[in-house]
Amino acid sequence: MTTASSPYARITDMLSNVSNFNIIDTTLREGEQFANAFFNTEQKLKIAKALDDFGVEYIELTSPVASEKSREDNEKICQLGLKCKVLSHIRCHMHDASVGVETSVDGLSVVIGTSSYLRKFSHGKDMDAIYKAAGEVVTFIKSKGKEVRFSSEDSFRSDLVDLLRLYRHVDKLGVNRVGVADTVGCANPRQVYELIRTLRGVVNCDIECHFHNDTGCAIANAYCALEAGATHINTTILGIGERNGIVPLGGFAARMYVADKTYVTNKYNLHMIRDIENMVADFVEIQIPFNNYITGYCAFTHKAGIHAKAILNNPTTYEILRPEDFGMTRYVSIGHRLTGWNAVKSRCEQLDLHLTDDEIKEVTRKIKELADIKPLGIEEVDSLLRVYNKKLEQTSHENIAAAADAAGAEIKDESSN
Amino acid sequence: MTTASSPYARITDMLSNVSNFNIIDTTLREGEQFANAFFNTEQKLKIAKALDDFGVEYIELTSPVASEKSREDNEKICQLGLKCKVLSHIRCHMHDASVGVETSVDGLSVVIGTSSYLRKFSHGKDMDAIYKAAGEVVTFIKSKGKEVRFSSEDSFRSDLVDLLRLYRHVDKLGVNRVGVADTVGCANPRQVYELIRTLRGVVNCDIECHFHNDTGCAIANAYCALEAGATHINTTILGIGERNGIVPLGGFAARMYVADKTYVTNKYNLHMIRDIENMVADFVEIQIPFNNYITGYCAFTHKAGIHAKAILNNPTTYEILRPEDFGMTRYVSIGHRLTGWNAVKSRCEQLDLHLTDDEIKEVTRKIKELADIKPLGIEEVDSLLRVYNKKLEQTSHENIAAAADAAGAEIKDESSN
Repeated sequence: MTTASSPYARITDMLSNVSNFNIIDTTLREGEQFANAFFNTEQKLKIAKALDDFGVEYIELTSPVASEKSREDNEKICQLGLKCKVLSHIRCHMHDASVGVETSVDGLSVVIGTSSYLRKFSHGKDMDAIYKAAGEVVTFIKSKGKEVRFSSEDSFRSDLVDLLRLYRHVDKLGVNRVGVADTVGCANPRQVYELIRTLRGVVNCDIECHFHNDTGCAIANAYCALEAGATHINTTILGIGERNGIVPLGGFAARMYVADKTYVTNKYNLHMIRDIENMVADFVEIQIPFNNYITGYCAFTHKAGIHAKAILNNPTTYEILRPEDFGMTRYVSIGHRLTGWNAVKSRCEQLDLHLTDDEIKEVTRKIKELADIKPLGIEEVDSLLRVYNKKLEQTSHENIAAAADAAGAEIKDESSN
Repeated sequence: MTTASSPYARITDMLSNVSNFNIIDTTLREGEQFANAFFNTEQKLKIAKALDDFGVEYIELTSPVASEKSREDNEKICQLGLKCKVLSHIRCHMHDASVGVETSVDGLSVVIGTSSYLRKFSHGKDMDAIYKAAGEVVTFIKSKGKEVRFSSEDSFRSDLVDLLRLYRHVDKLGVNRVGVADTVGCANPRQVYELIRTLRGVVNCDIECHFHNDTGCAIANAYCALEAGATHINTTILGIGERNGIVPLGGFAARMYVADKTYVTNKYNLHMIRDIENMVADFVEIQIPFNNYITGYCAFTHKAGIHAKAILNNPTTYEILRPEDFGMTRYVSIGHRLTGWNAVKSRCEQLDLHLTDDEIKEVTRKIKELADIKPLGIEEVDSLLRVYNKKLEQTSHENIAAAADAAGAEIKDESSN
């Protein structure tokens, strides 16, 4: 329960679970609601195994009531004998519950809309009817020996008093977890903190949270929920889900790694993130976003001169995620107009070219001049540095500006041929 | 200064600027540090004009010291006669400042690293030297009549007392804004709130914030900074910048729209977001991420049966962003195994097919059965509904199950031909 050893850690709070949380990955439920998702049985089994190997504590599956194939696939996933627990997601109906308890899953995740929006335009029930249905469904599932979570839907547009009354009701009936869901992606971090901290004082059971990302707060909301005392966070691979999705597993891992590196690296197999994301991206026919957390192709690329200089001195200057911990590598970009001589110096050392600082500054001037017209690839930079070194040797290091200009002219000729 | 009229608005706080903020877009500075970015003059002018038309209050440009072309382009942008103010970004050096004040920009954004990491491995200066340099540079720029912002770099890994002392110093010297920068993307929302709220009590000038997104908190941090009293937020188009970038203009607009729709829609031309993003994506040769805020291709797609049903009744059930306000359209997906009969009913009405609820439930069963094997395109769903309607008429609506099965068989044959 102690928080991170990092220099930017918050002061420890007894109720915070930043260093003590569980992941419920719902790629096989929420992820199936992504526009492009249509997982066949084999794909579902692969995703379930990969998530289990990664180390998530739970996976959540589409309701067995959704379709015949959904029910069959749920059974097949249960037969895999995974280390993680398997849940399926059902509406707060006795019919769904009675089908759910006959499957082999470890638990059922029950949901019902509680905002005035959903009460009026989705299921039409008032809060008293919800209260009654919740009690009936939870009691029934408990009696069958399954784990049960009871979640409101659209929690952040629901009446606070109604919500707390409902949660206390199901908590007293022995629910394993209550769920808070920002179904529409409207919640903001301090609002999340306040609701979860309040709820933490009302129920004794665990608290699960589900955050959509319509307004860019999903990961931050998950973090603040843990600070407030939530215990379980919903993720999906690449964040896929309804609309633009929910908390992405990789981005969430990055956030929690920064908060408590030891806890996260001991618990989850972070090297798998790239492969799992590539697999799912392939299944749903999307590209990994250029700016994806950890695995986006520029996540560890450093470009501006002052960044490159400092990174070469000590990567912690501009990196809080060690690429090696995620099976990734760092790239320092130098062939552009924002480059600096320290980055060029580092490259000269890699190429075993022995130049003085003044000589390096001179060739850096030349790189900036050329790159101001068109950025240079690393091969062009290397070629320029090698030719420059040769010219310097030929002229006994007498006129470094002339050598740089001559080298620049030579590689320009090469690239135009 | 009043906050939103939305039902999920926070209680108004006198210091909050959620309904009173300015955007400093730095696509032409931070964005140029994105791995793929190499803007030519024409592209820079187009980006500057588009941002001005969108309505940002400031744009920030690469330092004129970076390269000769950077200096020339800064002048050309200043000559456009934009409504927004133009800033350029410089290091806290007298040399950079003396070049900067000779250009036509409205102001200079001065930056220096203040964390122990950057002090040791980047510029090597101690806090006293920074204090002195800051005073000298700020005073000089002020004396030349330009706006000046003084920012620390890596603020969230800097010593709080050192930071506050430095900010108070430059505030007393008459700086227009102090800047707080999460250069490495380590900050979390409540930490941001606390630092900015503290700083709000220390300085009288405006407070500008710059948040990287390595751990998924950039937009949320910007929001919490405004809640705490920050006045200016840095954005880039699509969030492009060093590593995986900073607060994206579109995502930030989505967040603030939810907080105060009237303020945001009156101030910014939200319909332009898609075109501006497409233009920049084209310039830097990237694809718009599948899950991009507002413009990602599934941002307004609704799939699960209960979502589709409610959305068709009333879009506010599952949408907090009105797609029309961003020049976008909603799509309700129905040809998949998670579909529901209410969504199918809505499609029948659009096709002017007059079916009873029982008949619609029956054909929904058929759609789920077919889609359990392979999802159906909208043309296939339409074809199924039309054939089903015809079969029903031919059999006088006597056996609805047989008609659904016959229609299913017919469209399966069609699609296998």
